[in-house]
Amino acid sequence: MSGTPREVGAAGSRALAHVWAVIPAGGAGTRLWPLSRSAMPKFLRDLTGSGRTLLQETHDRLAPLVGERFVVVTGAAHAEAVRGQLPELAADAVVAEPSPRDSMAAIGLAAALLERRDPEAVMGSFAADHVITHQDRFADAVRTAVAVAREDWLVTIGIEPTFPSAAFGYIHEAGPLAGVEGAGVVDQFVEKPSVETATEYLARGGYRWNAGMFVVRPRVLLDLLASWHPEFAARLREIAADPARLPELWPELPAIALDHAVAEPAAAAGRVATVPAQFGWEDIGDFDALAALLDQARAAGSEGPIVLGDDDLVSALDSTGLVVPHSGRTVAVVGLHDVVVVDTPDAVLVTTRARAQQVKQVVAGLKQARREHLT
Amino acid sequence: MSGTPREVGAAGSRALAHVWAVIPAGGAGTRLWPLSRSAMPKFLRDLTGSGRTLLQETHDRLAPLVGERFVVVTGAAHAEAVRGQLPELAADAVVAEPSPRDSMAAIGLAAALLERRDPEAVMGSFAADHVITHQDRFADAVRTAVAVAREDWLVTIGIEPTFPSAAFGYIHEAGPLAGVEGAGVVDQFVEKPSVETATEYLARGGYRWNAGMFVVRPRVLLDLLASWHPEFAARLREIAADPARLPELWPELPAIALDHAVAEPAAAAGRVATVPAQFGWEDIGDFDALAALLDQARAAGSEGPIVLGDDDLVSALDSTGLVVPHSGRTVAVVGLHDVVVVDTPDAVLVTTRARAQQVKQVVAGLKQARREHLT
Repeated sequence: MSGTPREVGAAGSRALAHVWAVIPAGGAGTRLWPLSRSAMPKFLRDLTGSGRTLLQETHDRLAPLVGERFVVVTGAAHAEAVRGQLPELAADAVVAEPSPRDSMAAIGLAAALLERRDPEAVMGSFAADHVITHQDRFADAVRTAVAVAREDWLVTIGIEPTFPSAAFGYIHEAGPLAGVEGAGVVDQFVEKPSVETATEYLARGGYRWNAGMFVVRPRVLLDLLASWHPEFAARLREIAADPARLPELWPELPAIALDHAVAEPAAAAGRVATVPAQFGWEDIGDFDALAALLDQARAAGSEGPIVLGDDDLVSALDSTGLVVPHSGRTVAVVGLHDVVVVDTPDAVLVTTRARAQQVKQVVAGLKQARREHLT
Repeated sequence: MSGTPREVGAAGSRALAHVWAVIPAGGAGTRLWPLSRSAMPKFLRDLTGSGRTLLQETHDRLAPLVGERFVVVTGAAHAEAVRGQLPELAADAVVAEPSPRDSMAAIGLAAALLERRDPEAVMGSFAADHVITHQDRFADAVRTAVAVAREDWLVTIGIEPTFPSAAFGYIHEAGPLAGVEGAGVVDQFVEKPSVETATEYLARGGYRWNAGMFVVRPRVLLDLLASWHPEFAARLREIAADPARLPELWPELPAIALDHAVAEPAAAAGRVATVPAQFGWEDIGDFDALAALLDQARAAGSEGPIVLGDDDLVSALDSTGLVVPHSGRTVAVVGLHDVVVVDTPDAVLVTTRARAQQVKQVVAGLKQARREHLT
C-alpha cells in the first residue's frame, strides 16, 4: 500500500506498513457453556461487559497497528457471524475453513494467502478470544516483534509470568538476541507444567508464558513448515494459488497445532526469537478465570456477586461469585459463596468457581444424552 | 342427606354423615418463591410430584370421609383456579374472600354457612397446603375427632412429636377425656418454642404438635367465638343469613388467627379436647422442608439431587440437594451440595437447603424494587 515504513491508520495512529493481523477464530470452548456454544463460541460473545465481543476487541486492539490488513480464519459455520460483527473488513478478509484442522492449517493458510498478496508482508497471529489489558505495552511488543520478524525470525511474544501457573505453556530463552534490547533466542517450548515445575521455572528465570502470539514473515513460516512437513506446506501454497481448490485440498491437511508443527522444532533449530511483554493476558478458559478478570475490573469495595449483564436482573443476598443473567429472567442467589450462575434462554448452569473446569463434562454428558442442540 | 350415621362415598368407602370438610386455601408462601407466587400459591402446585396439586391431594384425602360435603374458602384471585382444579365440587362449595382476613374469618364464615345449611353438621378444618402420609391413621383420627366433636367439644388433632421442633406450635394435654380412648382435654396452646423448650416438652410428655386441624360443630365454634368476640360472631352469622352482604361486611372483620381468637381462650375454659395421631405431617414451609419430604419418598440409594419435575432436564455432576426444572429448560449443576435450584419461566432461584428460610427476603426485596410482577 505504501513504500514508507508507516502510514496513518483508521484510528489516526500510525499503522505499520505491510503488517497483517491474522486472527484464528475457532475453538469450541465447552468450559464456558452455556454462554459459549458450538454455534456461538466465546469469541462471538461480549464476555467483559465492554459492549464489544472478544473478536471485536481483538480487532480494535490490532487496527491501530495494521490499519485494514486483517485475515480472520474461522469455521464455515461462523463466517457469517464474523462478517456481521466486523463489517469494516474487506470481503476477502474472512476465510472460512471447510472443517476444523487445528491452528497450523488455519494460520498456515493465512500465511500462504499473504505470501502471494504482499511479498513484503509480516504477519502477527493473535487468537480471537483473548483479553488483553495495557494496550500500549501490547502495541510496543508487537512493534518490536515486527522489527525482529523482518530479520526472518519466527518471533513469539513471551508474557512475563506473575505466578507459577499450571494452565499455560512456557517458553525458555537461551540467551539475548544481539541488537534488539530485551529480545532473546528461544531454545524450547514446554507444555503446561505442574505447579511445582512452574515454581522452579520462575525461580530459575528465563521462562515466559507462551501466549501463542507469533509474528513472522509468511514465507519464513511456510519455509519452516516445509522443513518438517513439506507436503503440508506445499498443499497450503497450492490452495493459495487457486483458492477454488480449498474444499478439495483442505480435508487432507493434518490437524496439528502450530506449536508442535513448527515452533518446537524451529526453536530446537535456533530459528525462534522472543520479545518480552508485561501486558495483562487472559484466555478466559473457564468461569473462574472470567470471574477473576471481571473482579479485577470492578470498583474496589464492591460487594455481592459480579454480574455480567444487567444488574437489575440479579437479586443477591449474602452471596459472592459470578452471575450471568443472559435470558432476561430474574436470577436470585441466596447464601452461596463463589457460586457461578449462568442463565440462558434454554439452559441454566449452577456451579462454583472452584469446580468451573468440570463444566466441560456437562457438555460431554449432554452430547451423550443426544441433546447436542444444547451444546 | 341421610338419617343413617354412614353413607357410601364417592370412592366407595363409607363417608361420615353430616361431616363437612372446610379447606382454608390461602397464604402467600413467599418462602417457596419462585415456585409459589401471589397469583399461584403453593396449594395450587404439585409439590410432591404426585400429579395432583396440594389442594387436590387435600380433597382426595378427605373425600372418602365426607363424600361431596366440602367448603373451600379462598382469595377472590384464586377462586377460579380452585374451581378448575376441583371440578367435582358444587358451585357453592367455593367461597371467595373479598380480601385476606386470616384464619378466624375464613373458617368462621364456613361455620356460619354450614350452621344454617346442616343443623347436625360437624366440620373439620384442614389447610389446603399440608402433606400427610399414613392416610389410614389420618382417617382414624378424623373419625375419633368427629365422635368427640358431636359431644360439643372443640377438637384439635394433636400430632405425636418425633423431634423437638422449633417450627411448630404445641398443644398441652391436661388429662384424659373420659370415655374416649387416647383423647385428652387440652389446657394450653403454646406458640413455636425454642429448641431447648421443645426438648423439655418432649421429656416432660403431654405435648403434641398443633397441626391447626380442628373438628367442631359449627354452632359450637361460633358460640365459643361469641364468648370472646361477640361482634365478630354476629357479623359472620349476618353474612351467612344474607350472603349478598359479604362484600359490605367482610372488610370490617378482624384479621386474627383462629388459635388466638378461639382455641387459646377455649382451652383455658376447658372446652378443647385433643385426639392424638401419628401420621406424617408437613406444611412444606420452605425448600428445605420440601427436599426432606421428597427425599423420604425416593428409593433408597438414590444419588444426586432430588428432582421435582422432569429428570431429563437436569444434568447433575457431584451434587446433592433439590432441583426444580419448571420452565422446560435444561438445568446443569456441578459440584454443589445441598443446593436448591428452582427454574421458572421468568425467574430462577439458587440457594442452599440451610438458607432456604431467607428466600422470603428475596421476595421482599423484589417488592421494594417495584418488581411485584415477579412475586
